Amino acid sequence: MQALLFDGQLRLANNYPAPILAPGEALIRPSLVGICNTDIEITRGYMGFRGVLGHEFVGVVQDCEDRAWVGRRVVGEINAACGRCGVCARGDQSHCPERTTLGIDRRDGAMAELFSLPIACLHEVPDSVPDQAAVFAEPLAAALEVLQQSHLRPTDRVAVVGDGKLGLLCAQALRLPGCEVVVIGRHPERWELLHALGIATAHVGSLDQRRKTKDEQGQAFISPSSFALRPSSFDIVVDCTGQPSGLATARSLVRPRGRLVLKSTFAAESGMNLSRLVVDEVQLLGSRCGPFAPALRLLDRGLVNVQPLVACQFPFSQGLDAFAAAGHRLKILLEI
Amino acid sequence: MQALLFDGQLRLANNYPAPILAPGEALIRPSLVGICNTDIEITRGYMGFRGVLGHEFVGVVQDCEDRAWVGRRVVGEINAACGRCGVCARGDQSHCPERTTLGIDRRDGAMAELFSLPIACLHEVPDSVPDQAAVFAEPLAAALEVLQQSHLRPTDRVAVVGDGKLGLLCAQALRLPGCEVVVIGRHPERWELLHALGIATAHVGSLDQRRKTKDEQGQAFISPSSFALRPSSFDIVVDCTGQPSGLATARSLVRPRGRLVLKSTFAAESGMNLSRLVVDEVQLLGSRCGPFAPALRLLDRGLVNVQPLVACQFPFSQGLDAFAAAGHRLKILLEI
Repeated sequence: MQALLFDGQLRLANNYPAPILAPGEALIRPSLVGICNTDIEITRGYMGFRGVLGHEFVGVVQDCEDRAWVGRRVVGEINAACGRCGVCARGDQSHCPERTTLGIDRRDGAMAELFSLPIACLHEVPDSVPDQAAVFAEPLAAALEVLQQSHLRPTDRVAVVGDGKLGLLCAQALRLPGCEVVVIGRHPERWELLHALGIATAHVGSLDQRRKTKDEQGQAFISPSSFALRPSSFDIVVDCTGQPSGLATARSLVRPRGRLVLKSTFAAESGMNLSRLVVDEVQLLGSRCGPFAPALRLLDRGLVNVQPLVACQFPFSQGLDAFAAAGHRLKILLEI
Repeated sequence: MQALLFDGQLRLANNYPAPILAPGEALIRPSLVGICNTDIEITRGYMGFRGVLGHEFVGVVQDCEDRAWVGRRVVGEINAACGRCGVCARGDQSHCPERTTLGIDRRDGAMAELFSLPIACLHEVPDSVPDQAAVFAEPLAAALEVLQQSHLRPTDRVAVVGDGKLGLLCAQALRLPGCEVVVIGRHPERWELLHALGIATAHVGSLDQRRKTKDEQGQAFISPSSFALRPSSFDIVVDCTGQPSGLATARSLVRPRGRLVLKSTFAAESGMNLSRLVVDEVQLLGSRCGPFAPALRLLDRGLVNVQPLVACQFPFSQGLDAFAAAGHRLKILLEI
């Protein structure tokens, strides 16, 4: 079968062996697969992964012991846990020490004509959610993990640093409890979506700010002075940049006793002044994969808008071109 | 008056100017003052402080606008907040950006015949609590800050790394909700207190473990295999070492989705792998000053035993000798 894989270099194979149905698993034929920054990091050596890439997918179950699943349109959690250890028993399956991870760690991913995933990972997609939205279930679930881990009060002031794919999803998720949210980024051309949702924005260069909301007549306006970007003034700051400089910006914005959430898996070693963290009693929170069911509910209800996040859709045969284009763009989708 | 101060070097002055009573403040004559690691760090340049040292004290109010305070035996919170800013209004007085800190930041400390502190910082000491216990109110409050910041379930497995003064206080505080606590240190001669309280101990060198509890007959025994020090197995790990190596030990013990509490203000820049923090969704929590009223209640009720923490008591005239002795010892007290 055709598969896009990384074996030291990225390549499109035409005769990659098809997966064999394993007990408790399902064979899935993907229709759309998203390219994630993690995929790009893997091609730079992250996780030392070798195999088929891809972990953001929507597809149809092709084969499965439990015949009820066959033919269903699904998305899927990417961590395949053992289900037997103490960590799994505690409900922390996504942290199972024996886990494999789709397209990231010892498990071939979704950028192929067929791939395999445990049934326990699958979530059926509601008919109302088109493929182009369902394929965002995985990164939206990761954004929701912040709400899953930590209590966000409706009165909390929230800053999201980074206006990439994950930043735009996090901002939409964190606004849901009613919080005031500002996104700090360097791509004003991406902010229309945010302004339409009443999310303020600011350019990281100036840390100037602008805010666009809808007034009662439904007309958009910008109120530049209503959202002060003072240092140490945010209750919760989420770093979605994956850059040391973004982390430093995020750190400067969080208030004493506030929370600093790290959403990027490639910040690597970083010299943070831990002594200041103690003095300010700041809480640093690592955040990774999240819950799929609420992500699908939010997509179903139209409470999160992912359509403007799609930069481009490539046929599978142009997979290498798609990766080449994915570096500094919003979401690139592959049609498998 | 006599005062022990740091002005680039540590010295005992004999004619330091006595403080003048300021509005809203009290003049206090200390009877006992503890030497804290922070004091030693200050003599190495921490905070760039110049002035009288000392922030762990018990003393008697000598003068005060509110005459009801005069003659009372008190301990005191060390952060003097403005009481007017948004941070104070939120209840975070110990993080007031305008605050001065007793013997640490722009406010002369308690190692003098007289010193000044806002009335709002004072707590009267119950008659049942002797000076030798009351002088531990400040560091015990700092230990309790972990319970103040974070929910400890009685079923949580807790590790305290470091068997210094703060480690021994933290272990006693964190055992209170019923948690299983192990202290990892390098001073077995200090562990008798812990064993008597049913707190397990382990030497950091081997990460071997030993546990000493009292059986029903009141007889002590060691049960070496009952407390496994497995990596990634603790729900909460508190680093009280102030050493990068201690932090690394603490990090290795915390489970995925667990909490790593930093209690030391001198860990400084430290290269922690933040990417692993994200993958394991570990929560890093800076923790500093804590609540005094519960600290006094616990001392009053005898639920925390500080008597074995006193290494030595020096007359004030031997203050320099006391500092010289304080490096690797348990608590050194100055009689003022």
